Amino acid sequence: MKNFRYYNPVTIHFGKGVLNKLGRTVARFGKKVFFVYGMGSIKRTGLYDKVMEQLKEQGLEVVEHGGVKPNPILSHTREGVEKAKKEKVDVILAVGGGSVIDEAKAIAAGAKAECDVWDFFELKEVVKDALPIVTVLTITGTGSEMNAGLVITNEEKKAKFGFRAEPLFPKVSFLDPTLTFTVPADQTAYGAVDAFTHVSEVYCNAEDIDADVPRGIMETIMKSIVKWAPVAIKEPENYEARAELMWCSSLALSGITWCGAGDLTLPAHMIEHSLSALYDIAHGAGLAIVTPAWMRYMKEKRSEQLEYFARNVFGKNSIDEGIEAFENWLRSLNCPVRLSEANIPEEEIDKIAENAYMLSVTWGMSDFYTVNVIKEILKLCV
Amino acid sequence: MKNFRYYNPVTIHFGKGVLNKLGRTVARFGKKVFFVYGMGSIKRTGLYDKVMEQLKEQGLEVVEHGGVKPNPILSHTREGVEKAKKEKVDVILAVGGGSVIDEAKAIAAGAKAECDVWDFFELKEVVKDALPIVTVLTITGTGSEMNAGLVITNEEKKAKFGFRAEPLFPKVSFLDPTLTFTVPADQTAYGAVDAFTHVSEVYCNAEDIDADVPRGIMETIMKSIVKWAPVAIKEPENYEARAELMWCSSLALSGITWCGAGDLTLPAHMIEHSLSALYDIAHGAGLAIVTPAWMRYMKEKRSEQLEYFARNVFGKNSIDEGIEAFENWLRSLNCPVRLSEANIPEEEIDKIAENAYMLSVTWGMSDFYTVNVIKEILKLCV
Repeated sequence: MKNFRYYNPVTIHFGKGVLNKLGRTVARFGKKVFFVYGMGSIKRTGLYDKVMEQLKEQGLEVVEHGGVKPNPILSHTREGVEKAKKEKVDVILAVGGGSVIDEAKAIAAGAKAECDVWDFFELKEVVKDALPIVTVLTITGTGSEMNAGLVITNEEKKAKFGFRAEPLFPKVSFLDPTLTFTVPADQTAYGAVDAFTHVSEVYCNAEDIDADVPRGIMETIMKSIVKWAPVAIKEPENYEARAELMWCSSLALSGITWCGAGDLTLPAHMIEHSLSALYDIAHGAGLAIVTPAWMRYMKEKRSEQLEYFARNVFGKNSIDEGIEAFENWLRSLNCPVRLSEANIPEEEIDKIAENAYMLSVTWGMSDFYTVNVIKEILKLCV
Repeated sequence: MKNFRYYNPVTIHFGKGVLNKLGRTVARFGKKVFFVYGMGSIKRTGLYDKVMEQLKEQGLEVVEHGGVKPNPILSHTREGVEKAKKEKVDVILAVGGGSVIDEAKAIAAGAKAECDVWDFFELKEVVKDALPIVTVLTITGTGSEMNAGLVITNEEKKAKFGFRAEPLFPKVSFLDPTLTFTVPADQTAYGAVDAFTHVSEVYCNAEDIDADVPRGIMETIMKSIVKWAPVAIKEPENYEARAELMWCSSLALSGITWCGAGDLTLPAHMIEHSLSALYDIAHGAGLAIVTPAWMRYMKEKRSEQLEYFARNVFGKNSIDEGIEAFENWLRSLNCPVRLSEANIPEEEIDKIAENAYMLSVTWGMSDFYTVNVIKEILKLCV
């Protein structure tokens, strides 16, 4: 067991019908609500009206900030920061998936700061304070609803950066699996892959893979995702499938999984960020391409971890068979597993590696993850 | 998956050497520290001096409250409340096992209240505020370091009652497994049994035992305890064994295990409280007697859960074999598994059942757990 620090103060309300507590919950944090959402799907599903009704019932004043993109962008975030400052809002309500919650977190930090919000991402400034955040999750995967991290893309710099800061833990997150019934098959798959890799990256990089408790918790989550993702895709309104995926996603990056196994390290995520920054593909799709390649590259260096992974997650007796089973599962979810399958030109590997190296430096991984190593991993994605 | 609410804001510092952050951590909460400890073992091991040094280095003023008994008693708790009020302390530091932490929690609540502290236990009053609590754990088992619950014995009323209240979550808990190297074999065993049953009671009572994530997390913890408790008893300075037991104990009652499986219910604990209140035996010893009997009594009513328990925790194909394997494991730890083995007279079953029924009523379980049902379970302890 490795030493660790664990802290996660998010209150989770999980299950059918929990949204009836939303208005009262938001009202605990103030009178003026900054309501952040995405491209309008919550209007089509009726969730927007339901949320507004909850807020109005409590007599809350609402300032809207819709239009958050998948892979949320800095310019829209900056707009949000300015609006939140100008309107002097008390609390941020994010209704959406990880992108919406991430932009909401950036706004929560920016609204309480003097500096430009991007300074936090380049680790030039530290978040000392933030507006309180309440979330309603509608797409599972990133785990942002139960952690203090966020990722934003700087369109000018073509940089997709992330960081974490404890003031950015949501105060309360509402997790109603029925809200994900309308998530289409591809996004369901990408979310499942994102959550799975939040665990598998830590697992396969674990400094102490023999620590029974974190290993068992991580295996539990990975096996549940492997089992339930195909069900959710086939039967979008299967409550059990949606519920297991939702709770797995939240736990995956909550911090509880790696306690005792080592630190959080996300090398495949680091490389993937460049794919979605440069080619605007879904984060989960990029992960499906990079993660098996990363595993193949690390076969010798992480042999013990990968043997456990093969045996305990996929019931296979060798690392190669384990990675193959993983890749077959990804294919069964209709995820791309090669660069070409996502229309990313093989000739641009050098450019991708250069881009990824920026984040490797920022995340303090560049001792091992040099441009050359990243290139070698990307070559295994061909 | 059942609906749930989850919240646990405790900061955990886990591992060798984490105590070097103790002084600074306590100082965050004020200048005057109420230092609660037990019967003096921390003086023999040198931990007392180490703690005092940390506090003095920060220039903190210390008010001591030693002498907390195993199965902490109300009179000593009331003394603590008076002293803490009179001295106007800012923060409570509990150094010890579950008993010390539980009494510290009661004092933290009592010091901020007008009512008598026992009123909280009889659920006549609600804890609205409490002094901040920092803990240093020296004996694993109760999980009090990572939850908001506590148990105190009212010696006059011969009542061992417990309750939980969110202001009583410790702010920070220091978990250094090396501090448990000196815990004797019997207490190591009883702590392991306590932690195990915090999980097994929830597991075997689960409303939805088919929910994969909570079931997997609970199985992980139970299997780790089954594996590592005998090792810790045989090799008291085995770091891995102590570390796994410590983290398992903390997680067991932290709330994370039953999310999605159903609510926390502790019927064997409810009955056991009467054994330790009436005969002053160790809580873990009482649990080793009552829990297998409870399982036998519930064989039909909880057949699905007990089949999973037999198969997934002990690798057995029938409920009977599973309970037998559990009982054999308890025997291997030198725990009593019958009333006579703890010198509790069989003729007093009626008296014990009457006593347990008080708590059955207080905990809202008396619809099913009537005096007669409790008697039937106790008869299976003979």
